[in-house]
Amino acid sequence: MFSSKSEYDRGVNTFSPEGRIFQIEYAIEAIKLGSTSLGIQTPEGVVLAAEKRVPSTLVVPSSMNKIMEVDGHIAAVMSGIVADARILVEHARVESQNHRFTYNEPMCVESCTLATCDLSIQFGESGGKRKLMSRPFGVSLLIAGVDEKGPQLWQTDPSGTYTRYDAQAIGGGAEAAQNVFTERYHRNMTLEEGETLAVDILKQVMEDQLSPENIEVAVVRVDDGKLHMYNPTEIKAIIARLAE
Amino acid sequence: MFSSKSEYDRGVNTFSPEGRIFQIEYAIEAIKLGSTSLGIQTPEGVVLAAEKRVPSTLVVPSSMNKIMEVDGHIAAVMSGIVADARILVEHARVESQNHRFTYNEPMCVESCTLATCDLSIQFGESGGKRKLMSRPFGVSLLIAGVDEKGPQLWQTDPSGTYTRYDAQAIGGGAEAAQNVFTERYHRNMTLEEGETLAVDILKQVMEDQLSPENIEVAVVRVDDGKLHMYNPTEIKAIIARLAE
Amino acid sequence: MFSSKSEYDRGVNTFSPEGRIFQIEYAIEAIKLGSTSLGIQTPEGVVLAAEKRVPSTLVVPSSMNKIMEVDGHIAAVMSGIVADARILVEHARVESQNHRFTYNEPMCVESCTLATCDLSIQFGESGGKRKLMSRPFGVSLLIAGVDEKGPQLWQTDPSGTYTRYDAQAIGGGAEAAQNVFTERYHRNMTLEEGETLAVDILKQVMEDQLSPENIEVAVVRVDDGKLHMYNPTEIKAIIARLAE
Amino acid sequence: MFSSKSEYDRGVNTFSPEGRIFQIEYAIEAIKLGSTSLGIQTPEGVVLAAEKRVPSTLVVPSSMNKIMEVDGHIAAVMSGIVADARILVEHARVESQNHRFTYNEPMCVESCTLATCDLSIQFGESGGKRKLMSRPFGVSLLIAGVDEKGPQLWQTDPSGTYTRYDAQAIGGGAEAAQNVFTERYHRNMTLEEGETLAVDILKQVMEDQLSPENIEVAVVRVDDGKLHMYNPTEIKAIIARLAE
Amino acid sequence: MFSSKSEYDRGVNTFSPEGRIFQIEYAIEAIKLGSTSLGIQTPEGVVLAAEKRVPSTLVVPSSMNKIMEVDGHIAAVMSGIVADARILVEHARVESQNHRFTYNEPMCVESCTLATCDLSIQFGESGGKRKLMSRPFGVSLLIAGVDEKGPQLWQTDPSGTYTRYDAQAIGGGAEAAQNVFTERYHRNMTLEEGETLAVDILKQVMEDQLSPENIEVAVVRVDDGKLHMYNPTEIKAIIARLAE
Amino acid sequence: MFSSKSEYDRGVNTFSPEGRIFQIEYAIEAIKLGSTSLGIQTPEGVVLAAEKRVPSTLVVPSSMNKIMEVDGHIAAVMSGIVADARILVEHARVESQNHRFTYNEPMCVESCTLATCDLSIQFGESGGKRKLMSRPFGVSLLIAGVDEKGPQLWQTDPSGTYTRYDAQAIGGGAEAAQNVFTERYHRNMTLEEGETLAVDILKQVMEDQLSPENIEVAVVRVDDGKLHMYNPTEIKAIIARLAE
Amino acid sequence: MFSSKSEYDRGVNTFSPEGRIFQIEYAIEAIKLGSTSLGIQTPEGVVLAAEKRVPSTLVVPSSMNKIMEVDGHIAAVMSGIVADARILVEHARVESQNHRFTYNEPMCVESCTLATCDLSIQFGESGGKRKLMSRPFGVSLLIAGVDEKGPQLWQTDPSGTYTRYDAQAIGGGAEAAQNVFTERYHRNMTLEEGETLAVDILKQVMEDQLSPENIEVAVVRVDDGKLHMYNPTEIKAIIARLAE
Repeated sequence: MFSSKSEYDRGVNTFSPEGRIFQIEYAIEAIKLGSTSLGIQTPEGVVLAAEKRVPSTLVVPSSMNKIMEVDGHIAAVMSGIVADARILVEHARVESQNHRFTYNEPMCVESCTLATCDLSIQFGESGGKRKLMSRPFGVSLLIAGVDEKGPQLWQTDPSGTYTRYDAQAIGGGAEAAQNVFTERYHRNMTLEEGETLAVDILKQVMEDQLSPENIEVAVVRVDDGKLHMYNPTEIKAIIARLAE
Repeated sequence: MFSSKSEYDRGVNTFSPEGRIFQIEYAIEAIKLGSTSLGIQTPEGVVLAAEKRVPSTLVVPSSMNKIMEVDGHIAAVMSGIVADARILVEHARVESQNHRFTYNEPMCVESCTLATCDLSIQFGESGGKRKLMSRPFGVSLLIAGVDEKGPQLWQTDPSGTYTRYDAQAIGGGAEAAQNVFTERYHRNMTLEEGETLAVDILKQVMEDQLSPENIEVAVVRVDDGKLHMYNPTEIKAIIARLAE
Repeated sequence: MFSSKSEYDRGVNTFSPEGRIFQIEYAIEAIKLGSTSLGIQTPEGVVLAAEKRVPSTLVVPSSMNKIMEVDGHIAAVMSGIVADARILVEHARVESQNHRFTYNEPMCVESCTLATCDLSIQFGESGGKRKLMSRPFGVSLLIAGVDEKGPQLWQTDPSGTYTRYDAQAIGGGAEAAQNVFTERYHRNMTLEEGETLAVDILKQVMEDQLSPENIEVAVVRVDDGKLHMYNPTEIKAIIARLAE
Repeated sequence: MFSSKSEYDRGVNTFSPEGRIFQIEYAIEAIKLGSTSLGIQTPEGVVLAAEKRVPSTLVVPSSMNKIMEVDGHIAAVMSGIVADARILVEHARVESQNHRFTYNEPMCVESCTLATCDLSIQFGESGGKRKLMSRPFGVSLLIAGVDEKGPQLWQTDPSGTYTRYDAQAIGGGAEAAQNVFTERYHRNMTLEEGETLAVDILKQVMEDQLSPENIEVAVVRVDDGKLHMYNPTEIKAIIARLAE
Repeated sequence: MFSSKSEYDRGVNTFSPEGRIFQIEYAIEAIKLGSTSLGIQTPEGVVLAAEKRVPSTLVVPSSMNKIMEVDGHIAAVMSGIVADARILVEHARVESQNHRFTYNEPMCVESCTLATCDLSIQFGESGGKRKLMSRPFGVSLLIAGVDEKGPQLWQTDPSGTYTRYDAQAIGGGAEAAQNVFTERYHRNMTLEEGETLAVDILKQVMEDQLSPENIEVAVVRVDDGKLHMYNPTEIKAIIARLAE
Repeated sequence: MFSSKSEYDRGVNTFSPEGRIFQIEYAIEAIKLGSTSLGIQTPEGVVLAAEKRVPSTLVVPSSMNKIMEVDGHIAAVMSGIVADARILVEHARVESQNHRFTYNEPMCVESCTLATCDLSIQFGESGGKRKLMSRPFGVSLLIAGVDEKGPQLWQTDPSGTYTRYDAQAIGGGAEAAQNVFTERYHRNMTLEEGETLAVDILKQVMEDQLSPENIEVAVVRVDDGKLHMYNPTEIKAIIARLAE
Repeated sequence: MFSSKSEYDRGVNTFSPEGRIFQIEYAIEAIKLGSTSLGIQTPEGVVLAAEKRVPSTLVVPSSMNKIMEVDGHIAAVMSGIVADARILVEHARVESQNHRFTYNEPMCVESCTLATCDLSIQFGESGGKRKLMSRPFGVSLLIAGVDEKGPQLWQTDPSGTYTRYDAQAIGGGAEAAQNVFTERYHRNMTLEEGETLAVDILKQVMEDQLSPENIEVAVVRVDDGKLHMYNPTEIKAIIARLAE
């Protein structure tokens, strides 16, 4: 279906006659090839959850973490190219630490998201002194955090656009997950209901049986304003709630 | 229709035999793919209004703002690629702050527009020390403001050209909107009439029902010389006036 | 007609087997796509006049000025790409101010034209520290001025060549206008006759009815050595003379 | 099978319409062309073993070492392009020494792996001041080490991704080896059982008869926290155990 | 005739299989498209003469000068691309002034020619800090001067080669002119005979009637060692001599 | 046979879909086009010998030396592109001198080989401040030396890989020579037997009659640890031994 | 004959599948298009001689010198592209002067040749700070000189290789000349015999009649160690000897 446009997408960052930038669209395809991640905002905090496609029983699952801490009050979950996500999250961490150092306060979640997107948009062939990616980042992030404006969930995409969601899913199962959100999400969920919904959706989009080895869950809670990465026991408890 | 010209548009910034620069024309197509934005100048101030294409009820609409403050007396509304608009508006903000710092006075609206266009024109492959876009910006801005020359509305385009309008629309519904302007706009409208006309046009070009979630309205008023972003209540009031 | 040469014109600045540089020829086509501008030298001063293609009645015509002041005694009128003209004229302004600052005297008209052309010729792929256009400037300028050598009219083209004319026209209607010059121009015209001839020619090459909104006129007078941009009333007066 | 994608893989670091980066996929093919290497983690330490494809009896086998010391407590075994591996391991050595110098403690194994991957991800055409590879590294490493978190085995790949394994094999015989792991590996193996398994797998995937000249074995032991490269006598002893 | 070589001439500065550099050959074609210029050396001095193709009676002929002063004792006449000639002559002027400043003596004619050719040869894609043309200069110069070695006439070409001639013609009518030289030139001509011959040849190669507006003549005389640009009256006198 | 891969080998340093880097494979072909060189390690020292393809009896054979001194205890013999070998050997010489200067001891042979390979691997399009080859070096070296680890013979190839051999041949006759080694080489040869074998092999692979003009022989002896380039008389003596 | 290789020779400095670098081979073709030059070494000194293709009787032959002084004791004669030779010889001159300045002694002939070749080898696309040719030099030099090792004749070629000859010819008539050398050259020729042979060969390969205008001769003599450029009278004398 793309064959007749091939003349326009070789320039990494150029428009097609229809006004499209194909490399960004292809990067979005890279995200769809990834495993599913999702986030849910509740008044008590934000839940992040992710599928882990563990290629073999010999892999140590904890080495494939999809949820990454950005700062004490901000976390990100990714779908797409793992190494690209690492660059973006590392950039967000540095920006966040710089903010703390300069202003002696935690960075607000939107600013942290914006800083990530400012790196995403800088790709192509015009590089100055700073090293630039020669292609867009093939990754989407859901960034969850709590700041003085309350709990928030933001999504970034390869074009450098960012949008705030009440609940959002990315990766291979995104569409299926979003349909479930439309049916079952409501703004006054408790954090526990959010956790249950998140894991239930993963159950529906994943081929494998749920286990603490192949999913990750984390929350940023409003009460203490901090990120909590759930350990296997906590994840098992949520899975158990689903079976009830 | 463009197929036979493909040989000329691969060089990002080169002429075709007919003297056209295709990448700029394709960037203009990118704008037409965007949602509709418009601006109306009245003796009492300038109205900006924009359609928001909210992809899902789970999106937090306020995170997708199309109208952006440049300075206390200048605002811009965009159609096209969101991330490109952010770069241009950020540039305009910096120029505007520099002006205040250097001359201790607000920047005039035309100078601010010119500064934005000076960035737009600098794309291509010859980059020096400064980082350049390798393609034109795929965005058009309507810049509204009030300065000592009174209320003004300017449009920028990807070629770096800027033009002043009494009323102008950009994006997917631009043509339809311009037809309505020709019929109903007159130079002595009150600001309230301008607001009503702006929202009425959005109503005609949008598929969805108008709501404070899917449109934005802002004015820069002559009396206080300041930008006012309308809140949902104020937008509801304008929608209500339409129904009368 | 150009199809068989396409292999040679992709390198932005290379010769074809016939010794032609196609990008410069294509840039000249860009000028022919533009509106008509013209200049007439008389012993009393130089007249510049230009058609303005106002796309809509909602445009504020004064924002589309085709005649631009370079210095108090020099003006330029353009045909072709508006943003390209802005870069060249801005360059001419800076050179002219530098000359005043360094030598404490106005720059002579030919030097000012030469400075503009020196920028034009520097395009292509070899850029050093300074930012270069990756294509030729798609614009022709008529530069009018008065200096100690008297009133002068110069034309620049995309190849960086400049030539002095008694009377010259550029843009879409150039050929038609030049025919009229051959018939009706003579070197001892009064400035008023020059104005009348200039506007009469615009009348012949323009599709729309003449009005102070869609043409511009300016003169650089010998008696005071200064540029005078004509206001709507003055333009109306010239149009009125034509009807006599 | 790749012929129809050739249009997309010429840009070294660009996406195909399906969201794939072909140069990275091709680099992974380069690894499959290489000889087999493997690693096994046991509670007593980590075993590394590698096949050596000695092209002639005139080669001095010790000059073709596939297992390389990174630091006293970390070793790496490679499959793929030998010279690429040398660059990565040299980089890891420098990072490891810098860590010791700065913090006066051994680098932890994961950090050392990460540092290697940070170099892998930086390829393509945007280079700044630092020299970059113009293609991905055509090599996979198994990095074995012991630190305060115990014995560990990590794998790196050309995309810059790294994953921790209990046991993993890379290179031409990787798939066959992984099948054996699934059957015979268990987490409580003794180090001696690990050595035997490692060499037994090499025996199965190699065409030539096992000898101290065409395989290498090394372990990083938990008890002394140090890398031990096995000499021919020690390797012969393991081969002898297999025959039992 | 060139079609089958097109594969080799796209690299601006590369050899064809026959050992030819096509861009230089094409640049020589550009010179043949130009008007005719010629030079004649006599014991009393060197004559330069050039055809001017004045496109319209409205052009001010003196603005299209083909003969340019390099220094008080050196002049150059050009055929080919006007703007390219300007760069070369400007370079020669600077070198000549530098020589005077450094050594307090006029530059010798050969050194001045060499300096011009050193710039010509530096084109292509390898540019360092200095700005380079991305194509050869499409111009040939005849450089005339008088120094302690007597009167001299040198020719430069786009490859950076320079050759001394007794009499030489370049541009569209070069071949015809050279035939006349072979018949009528002799080394002991007086300067007046040289002038007459030069103008007579122009008469034969030009389509238009000779006039002081469409030809230029200059001499560098041995007696005072200085360049004399002929004014219209002096040119008319030579034309008159022809009619005798 | 290579025709269908042409799409992948134009990028100088990129992978083909099969994981191959064609430019390196083609560079290896360049070596096979060269004359034959070989090296033999014995307990008493290392022998290097090389065929010289003298194009004419008018050539001074000593100007075409294939064996080059790197340091007093290290020599290299080459097959492939002569000028490429010169760059690598010059690099090895500088590294070796630096080592002596810094550590006040001779460089060991392996380090010297490694330093050569580190230069080989750095080719392609990403160059930083240092000048890089835009293609791989089309040369293979046999590096012979004696250090505290005894006599050694190393081979480098265009990919930057280096391997130690007991005996090895490179260039056009490599395969034939290697067959002879397999038959006749043994590790306890005397140096004299090594010399005889080396020259005997050259006799078999060369078309011309052996003479001191068309072969070179050198040894690095263990007893004095020094390189000895054999003069014509010494070479004649070896040839004479063959005839016995 | 080259058509099927065109895919490989566009990269200026890349290997073909057969291990050839076509741009260097094409540069050698450029040399064959040039006029013939030759050199002869005798015990009394080295003779250089060259054909001059004077395009017209109006050319001043002395301006087309093919033999160029490098230093007082070294000269070079060229075949191929004149302007390329000028760059190489200028480089050799600077190196030679630097040597004298640094070591207070004349540079030896081989070092001077090597310095020239070091410049030749540096072409292509990887340029650092220094300006590089984007193609090989299309020229071959014969470098003649006398130093403490006696009289010497070296040849350079576009690949940067240099070889010493007793007698050698380059350019269009090289092959014919080499055949004569094989027949008539012997190492104990007197310098006069060398001169006669050199000129006799030029007579055989040139179409035109020999004259002091169309050949050049120079010798570097052993007795005074200096270069002597022969004047027309001396050349006539040699021509006269031939007729005897």
